[in-house]
Amino acid sequence: MTRSPVVLGLDFGGTKIAVAAGDLTGRRLGVTTVNSLAEAGAEAAMARGLTAARELLADVAPERELAAVGAATLGIPYDDRVELAPTFPGWGEIAFGQLVRDAFPGVPVRLGTDVKAAAAAELRWGALAGCDPGIYLNLGTGLAAAIVAGGTVISGAHGASGEIGYNLRTAVDVWIEPAERTILEHVVSGQALDATGSDKFGRPMTAAEIFALAETQPDAAVLADEFNRELAMHVVNLAIAIDPVRIVVGGGLVGSWARIAPDLRRALDAAVPFPPELMVARFPSDAPLVGALALGVEAAGAVLGEEAFT
Amino acid sequence: MTRSPVVLGLDFGGTKIAVAAGDLTGRRLGVTTVNSLAEAGAEAAMARGLTAARELLADVAPERELAAVGAATLGIPYDDRVELAPTFPGWGEIAFGQLVRDAFPGVPVRLGTDVKAAAAAELRWGALAGCDPGIYLNLGTGLAAAIVAGGTVISGAHGASGEIGYNLRTAVDVWIEPAERTILEHVVSGQALDATGSDKFGRPMTAAEIFALAETQPDAAVLADEFNRELAMHVVNLAIAIDPVRIVVGGGLVGSWARIAPDLRRALDAAVPFPPELMVARFPSDAPLVGALALGVEAAGAVLGEEAFT
Repeated sequence: MTRSPVVLGLDFGGTKIAVAAGDLTGRRLGVTTVNSLAEAGAEAAMARGLTAARELLADVAPERELAAVGAATLGIPYDDRVELAPTFPGWGEIAFGQLVRDAFPGVPVRLGTDVKAAAAAELRWGALAGCDPGIYLNLGTGLAAAIVAGGTVISGAHGASGEIGYNLRTAVDVWIEPAERTILEHVVSGQALDATGSDKFGRPMTAAEIFALAETQPDAAVLADEFNRELAMHVVNLAIAIDPVRIVVGGGLVGSWARIAPDLRRALDAAVPFPPELMVARFPSDAPLVGALALGVEAAGAVLGEEAFT
Repeated sequence: MTRSPVVLGLDFGGTKIAVAAGDLTGRRLGVTTVNSLAEAGAEAAMARGLTAARELLADVAPERELAAVGAATLGIPYDDRVELAPTFPGWGEIAFGQLVRDAFPGVPVRLGTDVKAAAAAELRWGALAGCDPGIYLNLGTGLAAAIVAGGTVISGAHGASGEIGYNLRTAVDVWIEPAERTILEHVVSGQALDATGSDKFGRPMTAAEIFALAETQPDAAVLADEFNRELAMHVVNLAIAIDPVRIVVGGGLVGSWARIAPDLRRALDAAVPFPPELMVARFPSDAPLVGALALGVEAAGAVLGEEAFT
């Protein structure tokens, strides 16, 4: 019996690398995750992810043809580099697309930005279905958004739309070069809150721990409030610019949603002329992986079935 | 001889009301302008604009059939009201669409927001042609933008995308109700700078005068610098969100472009990962009128010829 071909989806994040194998309808055959271990270097992380992908393939789809690979990453991927990935030291210099192609010789590869892949997945199968326009907000290791309008994700002239981690924080920062000021992502992101909390408490802390501690501990509450306040300012202004039906939130910080959502909700209601809906994504922890698998299916030239990921 | 039908375009701004009559290809037959005289009230302004439109029609197109009317306004127009028009007292309560229909009984009417109509005009015939995505920035009596992507203007879930005049100015303003804080437009707009300058110099001043005086007079230079700084922060963050090919600027403050453009250019270069082009619109003073006439041509069911407005 000839088995049908399969595709791979890879999502390279700052904290973890996720890999899925699926059939040409998008149905998942298996998923695996490895830690990014960013401190061990970008090349090692890349190699670990690619090895995990090959092992998954051997495990769940032995002797089946690999039809295509979709690979999503933080930042904007090219064959020879990754733009706008400041939260992962060395990641910018990695020959991202080329390394994926080298790992799977002769197989079609399609690259994408993780947050845009996530937004595409939510638009097709998730919480952004039918939203025109809509916003996907990623609260993960980094901070970024993606805007959907007219049934598609707005890419931008350089694939960089939605990279709000680069936002100016105050008017004082206007005209100051990036190296001389603090961009939004260095204050408002999972990685940033890890660092702020660890500084404050004198021991390694995660953003999730800080949000949990904020329920009872005043110093942690101040950190959480300040984080939510600054996040809310930029989410509000983005919502004013887009007038979305809905803002859909994914990424690791969704684990602390109960401590974030009320503050965002209140800020939207107070400041946006027509306040949008606000909700957790359908695939809060793996929308980029769902999107990467979809990139793979597209690269294989197949059309995803309605049953995909349902 | 039977003469071909004509259409009207009306643009109701906070400072002036412009009216154009055109043929079904969009070619203009005549244009007229009256002052809004906002201080005399919204109803009087509306009546003055509609009278001017009828007079123009009698003047340039006597005895020709009126096929349709396109009417653009600051704010978001409905038949019974105008939303988001805070710079023009009373304008929100005007039965905008109904009054236009009553003035031209039996004639198809299409309504639009002035800045989105302007963006549509620039997208079809002007400086946003081929830009995907692109931003139209209106620096006029008020402050607003319009985003174009995929060959169309993003309307928003409630027609309110791009209404950045409502932006939060700082994180301190998060969670504060609008009545208790100052929205961006009340600081960064032609009307706002008129008021700030008049306060500062103790006599009636226009924004244009302040920008001109800023070349030689230190107090005026401070006002201009502060205005440009805060404007730049929001233009930068909008450019980061959209990653546009180009930002195209229209509205009355374009008359002071030489004193505004270098500051905006420098801010975009310092902070946007892929800095967009920045230029004056093709129709800097009447893009909303061009767009209103296009709304009229569309309402007439005709297709605009390529020769329109060229």
